[in-house]
Amino acid sequence: MSISDEFAFIKDIQPERLFHAQKVVGIGDDAAIIGVEEGFEKIVCVDTMVEGVHFTRGTMKPFDIGYKALAANISDVAAMGGYPLYYLVSITISKEWSQEELRAIYDGMRSLGDQYEVDLIGGDTTSGKTMVLSVFVIGQVEKGKRLLRSRAKEGDVVFVSGTVGDSAGGLDILLHNEGASTEHPSLMEYHQRPKPQVTLGRMLSKFERVSLNDVSDGLASELLEIAEASQVDILINKETIPISEDLQNYRAEKAFQWAMTGGEDFELVGSIPETDWVKLQEECQTAGIKITKIGTVSSGEGRAFLKSHDGVQELKKEGYNHFNRG
Amino acid sequence: MSISDEFAFIKDIQPERLFHAQKVVGIGDDAAIIGVEEGFEKIVCVDTMVEGVHFTRGTMKPFDIGYKALAANISDVAAMGGYPLYYLVSITISKEWSQEELRAIYDGMRSLGDQYEVDLIGGDTTSGKTMVLSVFVIGQVEKGKRLLRSRAKEGDVVFVSGTVGDSAGGLDILLHNEGASTEHPSLMEYHQRPKPQVTLGRMLSKFERVSLNDVSDGLASELLEIAEASQVDILINKETIPISEDLQNYRAEKAFQWAMTGGEDFELVGSIPETDWVKLQEECQTAGIKITKIGTVSSGEGRAFLKSHDGVQELKKEGYNHFNRG
Repeated sequence: MSISDEFAFIKDIQPERLFHAQKVVGIGDDAAIIGVEEGFEKIVCVDTMVEGVHFTRGTMKPFDIGYKALAANISDVAAMGGYPLYYLVSITISKEWSQEELRAIYDGMRSLGDQYEVDLIGGDTTSGKTMVLSVFVIGQVEKGKRLLRSRAKEGDVVFVSGTVGDSAGGLDILLHNEGASTEHPSLMEYHQRPKPQVTLGRMLSKFERVSLNDVSDGLASELLEIAEASQVDILINKETIPISEDLQNYRAEKAFQWAMTGGEDFELVGSIPETDWVKLQEECQTAGIKITKIGTVSSGEGRAFLKSHDGVQELKKEGYNHFNRG
Repeated sequence: MSISDEFAFIKDIQPERLFHAQKVVGIGDDAAIIGVEEGFEKIVCVDTMVEGVHFTRGTMKPFDIGYKALAANISDVAAMGGYPLYYLVSITISKEWSQEELRAIYDGMRSLGDQYEVDLIGGDTTSGKTMVLSVFVIGQVEKGKRLLRSRAKEGDVVFVSGTVGDSAGGLDILLHNEGASTEHPSLMEYHQRPKPQVTLGRMLSKFERVSLNDVSDGLASELLEIAEASQVDILINKETIPISEDLQNYRAEKAFQWAMTGGEDFELVGSIPETDWVKLQEECQTAGIKITKIGTVSSGEGRAFLKSHDGVQELKKEGYNHFNRG
C-alpha cells in the first residue's frame, strides 16, 4: 500500500457518524477525547487475535475476524455488567492481505459495533510479518454495579447462559470437515460470529450480588477463576451442562470436552444467591435468554469439582492457553 | 513458556501498588474499571511497535522497547494537553524471546510509568511469529482544555520544543556505526528512551488557544497536519529549526533532513497567538524547557512552506510511514 493508499484507507474506515457524537472529540488527532458521566465508572479491556493462532484464512473470513475481535471485547464488558461505548483498533498488516480484505475486517467490526452502538474512535496501523488485530474497548457501568468474579458465596446457585462447546465444535468442522462444512452452520457461526451477552449482563447488574465471568477460555477455567477469586468451592453437575442439539449431532463423543474446555463461547457464567435465582430465571424467560443452573457454591478454598455418574473429579485449568499453543 | 510459567509471568508483571488505587478496581477480572472525575474528559490512544519495523534487537534493548512504546503514547496524551493515568498492554510474543527479556520489556514500561504515575491495569498476552507490542493509554484533561491540532489561526507564532532529528540520528548510529556507538550517547538515548513532554503540554493547556501535535512522524508531517486541520498556511524558517550540537557533530550534512522527516522525537510542535508567545517563553525558561519560534501562520488552505537561502519550497508529508516501509 502506498502512502496515498494508506491515507485513503484510513479515511475509508473512519465512521461517517458517531452514536456518541456529543461526547467524543479529537478523533484523528493525537488521541481521542471522551466525555465522562457522573454516576458511572468506565470499563476498559483489550483482546488480540493473531493469524495462525486465533484464526487462519481457512477458519475465518476477514469480515468475521473483525466481528469476533470486537465481540470478544464486548463480551468482557458484558461480564462486568456494563455496556460498550467506544473502540480503538491497532492492526498489524502483512503483505498477504489486500486492501479489500482489510476493509472487510473493519466492516465486520462496524457491523457488530452498529448493533451495540459502539464507536470506532482511534487506532494505529502498522506492518509486520503476521496479521495481528488488537481491539481496545471502553464501556461503562453504573457506579457500584460492576460484576466481579470475586463475589461468589456459599449457597449460591451457579449458572451459565446459552449452550457451551459450540464454538469449539464449529472450529473442528472448519479444520477437519471441508465437505461437511454446510451441515452444521450454527456451530460455525458460533465460532465465527459469537454473540456477546450484553443484555444478560445488564440484567444481572440490577441484582444485589452476582459473581460473573464470560466463557472465553472454557467453562472449567472460568469456574476455577470464580472459585479462586471468591475463595469458595464450586460443584457442578455434568448432566446439567447445556450442550446444543447441533453439537450432540455433530460429535456426541467430543461434545462434553468441548463444553468444558473449548472456550470462545462468550456466554456468561456466574453465581447468584438462591433467593434471587427464581427471579433471574423469570426475567431471562421474558427476555428470551436461555439460562441453566449447573451447580452450587460451598465454602472452600478456590477449587471446582464435577459430579457425574463416575463420581466427583476436580477441575483443572485446561482452557485455551496461548503460551501453550504458540 | 508452559501454562504455569504464563500464570507466573502474568503475576510477575502485575504492579505491587497502584498510584490511583482508590479509583481502579477489577484488575485481573474480565476488564478493568476506572473511576471518572467531574470536570475532566478522558483521553485515549494506542501505539504499536513491531519487531523488524520499529525496532530490532540491534537497535533496542528489551527495556527500551517497553519504555519507548509507553513513551509514544504518553506523548500523544501530552499533545492533547493532558496527563496519563493508566495503560493496558497487548503483547504478541514470538519464540525467540526469553521470559527474562519479556520481563525487561515490562520493566521498561514500569520505569517510565513510575515517573508519570501511570498504572498498568490490564492487557492480553498472545503468541505469534513476530513480537508486536501495543500499548493503550488512558489519560485526562480538564473539560474544554484539550489541545487540538485544528486551532491554529492567522498571525500565530509556530513553535517547537527541544531539538528535532536526534532520534533519527541515534537510529543511524545504531544501524551503521557499531564501532562509534559510544561516541554520541545522547542521540542513541533520544532514539531508545524518548521523553514525552507532559509538563509542557500541561503548561500549554492553561493558555487560551493553542494548536498542538507531538513530533512522531517528523516535523514536516506534523506541521502539515496542523495546517490542514486548521485550514491555514504555515511558513517556517530553515535557519531557526533547532538542531542539537550532537547531531551537527555526528552528521551535519544529514541533520536538517532528519529534523524535518526523521520523526519519533516526541517533542511538541504547535502554534500560539503572538500576544501569548512572550508569556509562554518566560514560563518555559522558568521550567527549564527549551522552546523555539520556527515560523508563523498565515491565512491559507492547509499547506506548509519552508523558507531558506534558496527560496521557499512547499513541504510534503515525507515523515515515517509504515505502509511505505512494510
